[in-house]
Amino acid sequence: MDLYDLIIIGAGPAGITAGIYAARKKIKTLLITKDFTGQVGLSWKIENYPGFKQISGLKLMENLKNHLKEYEIEIKNFEEVKQIVKDNNYFQTITNENKYLARTLIIATGALPKKLAIKNEKKFLGHGLSYCLTCDEKAFEGKIVAVIGGGNAGAEAALELQKFCPKIYLLEYLENLTGDEILKEEVLNSPSITVITNAQVLSFEGEKELEKIIFKDRKTNKEKEILINGCFVEIGTKSNTEFLEGLVELNEKKEIIVDPKTMVTSVKGIFAAGDVGNFNQKQIILACGQGALAALSAYQYLKTLK
Amino acid sequence: MDLYDLIIIGAGPAGITAGIYAARKKIKTLLITKDFTGQVGLSWKIENYPGFKQISGLKLMENLKNHLKEYEIEIKNFEEVKQIVKDNNYFQTITNENKYLARTLIIATGALPKKLAIKNEKKFLGHGLSYCLTCDEKAFEGKIVAVIGGGNAGAEAALELQKFCPKIYLLEYLENLTGDEILKEEVLNSPSITVITNAQVLSFEGEKELEKIIFKDRKTNKEKEILINGCFVEIGTKSNTEFLEGLVELNEKKEIIVDPKTMVTSVKGIFAAGDVGNFNQKQIILACGQGALAALSAYQYLKTLK
Repeated sequence: MDLYDLIIIGAGPAGITAGIYAARKKIKTLLITKDFTGQVGLSWKIENYPGFKQISGLKLMENLKNHLKEYEIEIKNFEEVKQIVKDNNYFQTITNENKYLARTLIIATGALPKKLAIKNEKKFLGHGLSYCLTCDEKAFEGKIVAVIGGGNAGAEAALELQKFCPKIYLLEYLENLTGDEILKEEVLNSPSITVITNAQVLSFEGEKELEKIIFKDRKTNKEKEILINGCFVEIGTKSNTEFLEGLVELNEKKEIIVDPKTMVTSVKGIFAAGDVGNFNQKQIILACGQGALAALSAYQYLKTLK
Repeated sequence: MDLYDLIIIGAGPAGITAGIYAARKKIKTLLITKDFTGQVGLSWKIENYPGFKQISGLKLMENLKNHLKEYEIEIKNFEEVKQIVKDNNYFQTITNENKYLARTLIIATGALPKKLAIKNEKKFLGHGLSYCLTCDEKAFEGKIVAVIGGGNAGAEAALELQKFCPKIYLLEYLENLTGDEILKEEVLNSPSITVITNAQVLSFEGEKELEKIIFKDRKTNKEKEILINGCFVEIGTKSNTEFLEGLVELNEKKEIIVDPKTMVTSVKGIFAAGDVGNFNQKQIILACGQGALAALSAYQYLKTLK
């Protein structure tokens, strides 16, 4: 089994930045990832990554990936870590294809879009229902769509959809939209976006394709419906930590509990960075910083082993 | 006196990122800064800011500044904050020109190059001695120079000077260079760089211009000298916190003690980000993340005041 000083799992902003920093420290590093796009790749327009006034998620990820590839770092793409076994002072990292040994780990597996867990959600996935704006927006050109979720992601999705769709509903469970003021204002001023707050979505309906969203108005307790051709769900994310259960401490949201000073987890030698961690704020620029810090902390820790 | 929800002090990576995030939240913000270059502007070649394989410090700062200027944010450039007075629930911010009131503050005043505090250091400043590579390297074309400090900044300086100088001495107090392996290796392989470790620099000597560095070899305890035409000092930095003494808690290095979860200081309503804080690692990408987090925390805190 190949032995590494560091295995980084995940290649979003946190994993890639950790990779850049580890490579600059000449740590013998392996980066294992399912893909190089992740959540950021789903973002159409990023305006809050300092240095780029506006950049697409895919373009930013391409920049980050090309930056990483400047360095000699071993990468296993299209591999998924299934389990980690602590084996004396090593971490055995078991993927769908292979096993690797490492002295330290940086977990940067991020998070994935949350599902609503309501009736017919599965049925209409790919038939009008989507969790990926960038992937599917073009399919709804000229159609009426809904976005579920009134935070930043939902507001951004609704604004973006104006390019393609004559009418957009934005549904939020709470009494008000929750994202950045600048986005809220744009949404509320848009002639093509209709905001519906206090909306608890109950089910998706239709023949083969999605046609209707049924929701409860939480103020009046009445059931209502809107007719749409498509729907994007933007209600947050879920950390990718299943493979870590029983190994590192997770919080009730299944995020890894991380010391924000060093990015170390409950297990010595295992660090975590990015959206997989129990950070209050999830932002690309924060994930990058956490990735850098995790690599620098791993470097310090490795020095103590020698 | 003008009242702001937030005053950001400093416009390095941390302050600018805080500004971008605050503006996106539509917080009524004033940014006060002495300049828009700071420490980063002194860096010739940055290779570890994710997204840019290689960028000069000045160019990166220009990008960040232009990014900030996309937003409506009030900026007072060329103003220096001299004192902050807590005045009930407000912070009176006194500059060399004016007074401003704010509900919250983000301190992002960074740090400045440390001096050696040895004989003739003042005398030769501007006469062969410099703390700013980018500013002065060209002046030493074809000359013999020394760099004092064997960390990343010193190694980078020595490597950069190869472009201009036929012979470069790199002096380090400790037994080994301390920076990134990738830089150390480059330095040690360079035919034009001579590394001298265990070197305690004692004084600068010369007529009008710097001609000689006297140092003690810490292994043999013998005094030695090298003949040079110029010298760059790269031995770390000192936080800009003088104006905060007695207001927020500082550590023994005079860095602001910051809660890394929220960037809050010992005083409610005052946040800090970047090199001015007591962070183990000082990196541009970390400073940006801290700036973003400070702004988001200030936003949360401001909501509780209303």
